[in-house]
Amino acid sequence: MKAALYGYGTVGRGAAEALEKSGIEVARVLGIGTMPELGDRFTTDINDVLADDSISIAAECIGGYEPAHSYLKASLESGKSVVSSNKQMISRYLRELVSIAREKGLSIAFSAAAGGGIPWLPNLIRCGEADDITGLGGVMNGTTNFILDEMQSGGRDFGDVLREAQALGFAEADPSADIDGIDVRAKIAISADLAFDGFLDPETVPALGIRFITMEDVENFRKLGLICRLTGRAERTESGAAAYVEPMLYAAGSAEWALPGAGNLISLESEKYGKLSFRGPGAGRGPTGCNVALDIIDIAQGRCIFDRVNCQKDIVNGTDEVLRRYYLRGDIDGIGFSAERRAGSGVITEPVSVSALHSAASAIIEKGGKIFAASLAE
Amino acid sequence: MKAALYGYGTVGRGAAEALEKSGIEVARVLGIGTMPELGDRFTTDINDVLADDSISIAAECIGGYEPAHSYLKASLESGKSVVSSNKQMISRYLRELVSIAREKGLSIAFSAAAGGGIPWLPNLIRCGEADDITGLGGVMNGTTNFILDEMQSGGRDFGDVLREAQALGFAEADPSADIDGIDVRAKIAISADLAFDGFLDPETVPALGIRFITMEDVENFRKLGLICRLTGRAERTESGAAAYVEPMLYAAGSAEWALPGAGNLISLESEKYGKLSFRGPGAGRGPTGCNVALDIIDIAQGRCIFDRVNCQKDIVNGTDEVLRRYYLRGDIDGIGFSAERRAGSGVITEPVSVSALHSAASAIIEKGGKIFAASLAE
Repeated sequence: MKAALYGYGTVGRGAAEALEKSGIEVARVLGIGTMPELGDRFTTDINDVLADDSISIAAECIGGYEPAHSYLKASLESGKSVVSSNKQMISRYLRELVSIAREKGLSIAFSAAAGGGIPWLPNLIRCGEADDITGLGGVMNGTTNFILDEMQSGGRDFGDVLREAQALGFAEADPSADIDGIDVRAKIAISADLAFDGFLDPETVPALGIRFITMEDVENFRKLGLICRLTGRAERTESGAAAYVEPMLYAAGSAEWALPGAGNLISLESEKYGKLSFRGPGAGRGPTGCNVALDIIDIAQGRCIFDRVNCQKDIVNGTDEVLRRYYLRGDIDGIGFSAERRAGSGVITEPVSVSALHSAASAIIEKGGKIFAASLAE
Repeated sequence: MKAALYGYGTVGRGAAEALEKSGIEVARVLGIGTMPELGDRFTTDINDVLADDSISIAAECIGGYEPAHSYLKASLESGKSVVSSNKQMISRYLRELVSIAREKGLSIAFSAAAGGGIPWLPNLIRCGEADDITGLGGVMNGTTNFILDEMQSGGRDFGDVLREAQALGFAEADPSADIDGIDVRAKIAISADLAFDGFLDPETVPALGIRFITMEDVENFRKLGLICRLTGRAERTESGAAAYVEPMLYAAGSAEWALPGAGNLISLESEKYGKLSFRGPGAGRGPTGCNVALDIIDIAQGRCIFDRVNCQKDIVNGTDEVLRRYYLRGDIDGIGFSAERRAGSGVITEPVSVSALHSAASAIIEKGGKIFAASLAE
């Protein structure tokens, strides 16, 4: 059995290492520039892979929309099953790529696109075979969890910790994807697609991040016995499903509360299971590489659980149907939600719809205001 | 696709319900007495199932060694793949049953035998395909976790809580299997078999339970900032592997610390993943039924991960190679381990081998002494 890797950065190298045990040969690596250590296996031309019929699986670890998307499409069209670790691209093109794979009788798997090294997506699909998923989500971004943890356990300022994370290389120079919840948006959209078997456009997922959290908020939470985690959440609603990203406040002693550092914790809720949680490394060469390798191995052995996925029907994001209580602090005069009680220098609102809260908060931020909003976890 | 169920108690009924979504028909149910609600599907004679070639999978939810073991053996010999939720029987007969299944080209799966409703075993096997497991274990018994939680959070006495658990129906009239760690012993032996691909006789797994824990111990732990959980643990050693069951003490804020009620939390440690944890319901009709149903569905769809299991080589339990620090309290005069420091009315020993500690503690208990021992989690 032969596979090709598209991209040979952190994840691609991790995948190659994790395939060593399996007996699957990485026959080709597509990259840019030169990689003398790969010898003849290295190429910069996708056609070298597409034309090679001995390669039956191609795994993409490039990231971004293009050329990742066209490479996977071309690979499927040339008869190869595909694997991807690319949340951004998969969240946008899932329906199209699944549809081509089904037509051709090929597999497409993407465990590493949500949860990094946690086997979250395959278990979500598998549990859905016996039970109806009612809700899911959790802490899906390690960088923001590291920042929040340092603030809440270490008493350090947001800016300080962000700069440290950037220096350590696990926050980007432009930190927006992490701290504004864009990364989690793609992951929760993909999770919702699989849980509710449809396609939810990630652009419709409202996201509030942690850009404006201050030590004042942390102190307010501490007095309430709560801890803040940036959370992706999707749930079944009366008319369909809803997905959103926002900071949430968790009670002392909960599983989310006991999640230090860059850890991830993702859960599903279902009628028969109750709550089932998966906790582990949400990123990194070893773990994410394993998730890519395991998808390849599953396909090679004919037991890819993603083959059960269809995801063709539209999911309209019904965040107007979901009500939550929010902690608010900052430029909130005239925001128009009644406060149920005070919370230090902030307030806790009465239950309001997720869509109304996100719209109001985004409008304030767009006008240059600063607001920190976090919902109370159930 | 047709399946048969052996046993129609809590787990069997849960499995039947969880199969409803799948399109797999429960064509026969083997039970005792009469079950009019099942009509013609009910039988008390195993031969009715064995002789029916239209049934390709048999799932055993009876419990105990016999007739469960002979039923599964006969089912394999008559060409049916098998599923079991029976930790006791699987932990003893795993090697024999796997060997027959491989010879016949059939599947054998047993997710519900360890972890109840948690998809622990299939993920343990799957992760082992890409990485080398170095250690595993955690909280694998809900009844004892409920008891310990009530003592540590609710300040209630061991005997009181045990009686309540018995009245609620989730501790047996003879509570030994739970409180002496016998239940966990079977689960950790099976987990070790799959992680280290061999067969570890469950009779060789030393088990210390929570029978002699008192509020004095709980108070000692509280002062140390620790919480006690009955733990199954297996790990790779220099010469092979070791497995054992004992109370362990976890630090405040750890995942095991934040595990209230009857919850289970099982983790694997490996070279590339680091630590990966699975948390959820360790028992119950819905969750355990789902785990049985998912094994059946996986087999029906030709993607049973247990097909990778071989487990023929002997694993000698090397608990003499594992060193831990222990908290000891009770009749410990002359036990022969040096105390590193005091811990309230107890002591913390220097690192001692698991086998030496278990032998010494068991000898004291056999002579009618009372001792509570718990190791310090790393």
